[in-house]
Amino acid sequence: MTDLAGLVDNVRTKAPIIHSITNYVTVNDCANLLLACGASPIMADDPEEAAEIAALCDGVNLNIGTLNHHTIPSMLAAGRRANELGRPVVLDPVGAGASRLRTETAQRLIREVRFAVIRGNISEIKTLVCGRADTRGVDAGEADDSDDGRLALARTLAERTGAVVAVTGARDVISDGARSCVVSNGHPMMSRVTGTGCMLSALTAAYAAANPERLFEAACAAVVAMGLCGERAYAALGARGGNNALRGGIIDAVYRLDGQSFQEGARYEMR
Amino acid sequence: MTDLAGLVDNVRTKAPIIHSITNYVTVNDCANLLLACGASPIMADDPEEAAEIAALCDGVNLNIGTLNHHTIPSMLAAGRRANELGRPVVLDPVGAGASRLRTETAQRLIREVRFAVIRGNISEIKTLVCGRADTRGVDAGEADDSDDGRLALARTLAERTGAVVAVTGARDVISDGARSCVVSNGHPMMSRVTGTGCMLSALTAAYAAANPERLFEAACAAVVAMGLCGERAYAALGARGGNNALRGGIIDAVYRLDGQSFQEGARYEMR
Amino acid sequence: MTDLAGLVDNVRTKAPIIHSITNYVTVNDCANLLLACGASPIMADDPEEAAEIAALCDGVNLNIGTLNHHTIPSMLAAGRRANELGRPVVLDPVGAGASRLRTETAQRLIREVRFAVIRGNISEIKTLVCGRADTRGVDAGEADDSDDGRLALARTLAERTGAVVAVTGARDVISDGARSCVVSNGHPMMSRVTGTGCMLSALTAAYAAANPERLFEAACAAVVAMGLCGERAYAALGARGGNNALRGGIIDAVYRLDGQSFQEGARYEMR
Repeated sequence: MTDLAGLVDNVRTKAPIIHSITNYVTVNDCANLLLACGASPIMADDPEEAAEIAALCDGVNLNIGTLNHHTIPSMLAAGRRANELGRPVVLDPVGAGASRLRTETAQRLIREVRFAVIRGNISEIKTLVCGRADTRGVDAGEADDSDDGRLALARTLAERTGAVVAVTGARDVISDGARSCVVSNGHPMMSRVTGTGCMLSALTAAYAAANPERLFEAACAAVVAMGLCGERAYAALGARGGNNALRGGIIDAVYRLDGQSFQEGARYEMR
Repeated sequence: MTDLAGLVDNVRTKAPIIHSITNYVTVNDCANLLLACGASPIMADDPEEAAEIAALCDGVNLNIGTLNHHTIPSMLAAGRRANELGRPVVLDPVGAGASRLRTETAQRLIREVRFAVIRGNISEIKTLVCGRADTRGVDAGEADDSDDGRLALARTLAERTGAVVAVTGARDVISDGARSCVVSNGHPMMSRVTGTGCMLSALTAAYAAANPERLFEAACAAVVAMGLCGERAYAALGARGGNNALRGGIIDAVYRLDGQSFQEGARYEMR
Repeated sequence: MTDLAGLVDNVRTKAPIIHSITNYVTVNDCANLLLACGASPIMADDPEEAAEIAALCDGVNLNIGTLNHHTIPSMLAAGRRANELGRPVVLDPVGAGASRLRTETAQRLIREVRFAVIRGNISEIKTLVCGRADTRGVDAGEADDSDDGRLALARTLAERTGAVVAVTGARDVISDGARSCVVSNGHPMMSRVTGTGCMLSALTAAYAAANPERLFEAACAAVVAMGLCGERAYAALGARGGNNALRGGIIDAVYRLDGQSFQEGARYEMR
């Protein structure tokens, strides 16, 4: 597992095209982050073209951050088409647990699409594991938020879905059911930037699409890369820098990241 | 009224969650501005979940900048639910007067939702006061644009709706019908950044949600804070800085604002 | 043709209002770029108000980047109304050729709206010229990508539609059927910023609206300005700069551009 760095360079070599059906809040940052890492973004969310666009792409990123009744069928269509073609699909179940619509949509997506990676915060992943549509964000906050607690959740959802599962937060854990990884990269101020989770999910789709035979390692590398770039952006903040400067700095750090600089800063532990 | 500064610090202490149904043009900046001031954003605009999400939040921000027939019922549902729960709702009637749809939607929102604060430019507020769906942006420009003229408009709308009303522009006025405030903070270049009005409305929702017993003062503090951060962002522009640098600088300045630095730069007059 | 610089200054003098129905990925950058060049943006995409808003504006910018079944009729309505009023309309056929929906929508727009300028990459313009809904991005990549090949495509589409046609890429060409222009400004890194094409189309709408009697020159000036500002933003990148810094730097460079600084950096050849 000393070669996560090689996966980073693969993204620039293979330049995967990623179809994202994602929320309109952070979509521009997701597109620029995909370009930063060496991938190319396509956003297309009309049901009439979603499957056709997915077929042109190397990977699909589904994010329910501002889901609505027109984009839900598009997500299903794009995910299923990518499944047929054997291309990795990533799910970001934003806000699962916060509304019945989000919880049920995330559950339906998991039933009807085979995901390569599912990435969420502990509240969202717990909602998916517990399978209750009535879970509230507050309840989910009561989950065991230790590394072990989060790993147990990730493992359970991984076993149930066949997906690699990443639970991200102050510290991040990744599991494919058998193997596990705990990542120490990152900076607390990243929580004051909207869309760091969305961006990480987009990045994960790019890493998975460029490394389809190594999905677990690809997810680990994406989580490490995002945290590391957050650290570097934080270190570069000037005296007047705030969360907008951090946001931009993360994208710029991803633009400058390669295998070697990844290796120099990666902090993770395989379990 | 020497303690507006305390209201600024309350936002960081209370960390209110703000549900925004807002336009897709400036939504990312609104989300990052909410994070910058110490609040947390949720965006959710499907009619099926709007009321449910509103119930999770401490305040609601409704902005008709890119309204459509799917988000109008969502705005009504979110606003009514917040009213039932006694949480403050802010209206930004973007473009009222520019189309029949916008004028009528803003009027309907005011009839069916009880707003804590309404914030708009003089053209928008005049449209709401005059109640004519046929008002044109050009006509509205003919309104008396003195402090007194704007205060008279704000007072009239405040009396009619029970909301605090802020009319913002080169100089800003706020009235709750009885008390009035004129704010001198701000910089003309802010008009070259898209969404400074939208961001101010989002900020106002955060200030109101953190200070629900002092809505007039909260609106005044938000208007002062936005203008002051605009000044500071302008002062920090380098030789190559343009309106994008100013946009980002405003968010970063809000991130760094606290009660003390607010106090040092606030320029307003209570009347 | 030494006076393209004058067209740049006209935008600030006339301050045209541009109605954009555009994708939600890059819409904020398009709005800020319009403000940067001296124009004012309005975004409004509900079918009920699209024509009414178009009638308030000096030009219309239609971009199918995230088209859907609710915004397609809005684009048609806004375009037709602007045609009736004699105001320039710009088309950005994003992704024409990538899906049947995009190809057919672009073709329908061209049939039902008279465009002042059509701006796309070679794949999109070739799709419009060949008129096939089954063209794939990959096929289009096989087009003759020399200056002469792109000029031939531009000329053909210009003759067929009456529009000025700009084909942009590593080098840019513009034709109105009779006159042609090849632009050498620009920097390869611009392809790593999402929305440089969208921003250029918005800029073109502003230049066309401020110079309605000189549409060919206006399109040439916009293409030169965008490339030149890309060069300047690249030159200003610091050691940590990436594609986010370049994105912001382009907008800031447009903010600082005037006729004189345009003249100093413009590199184009009339043919």
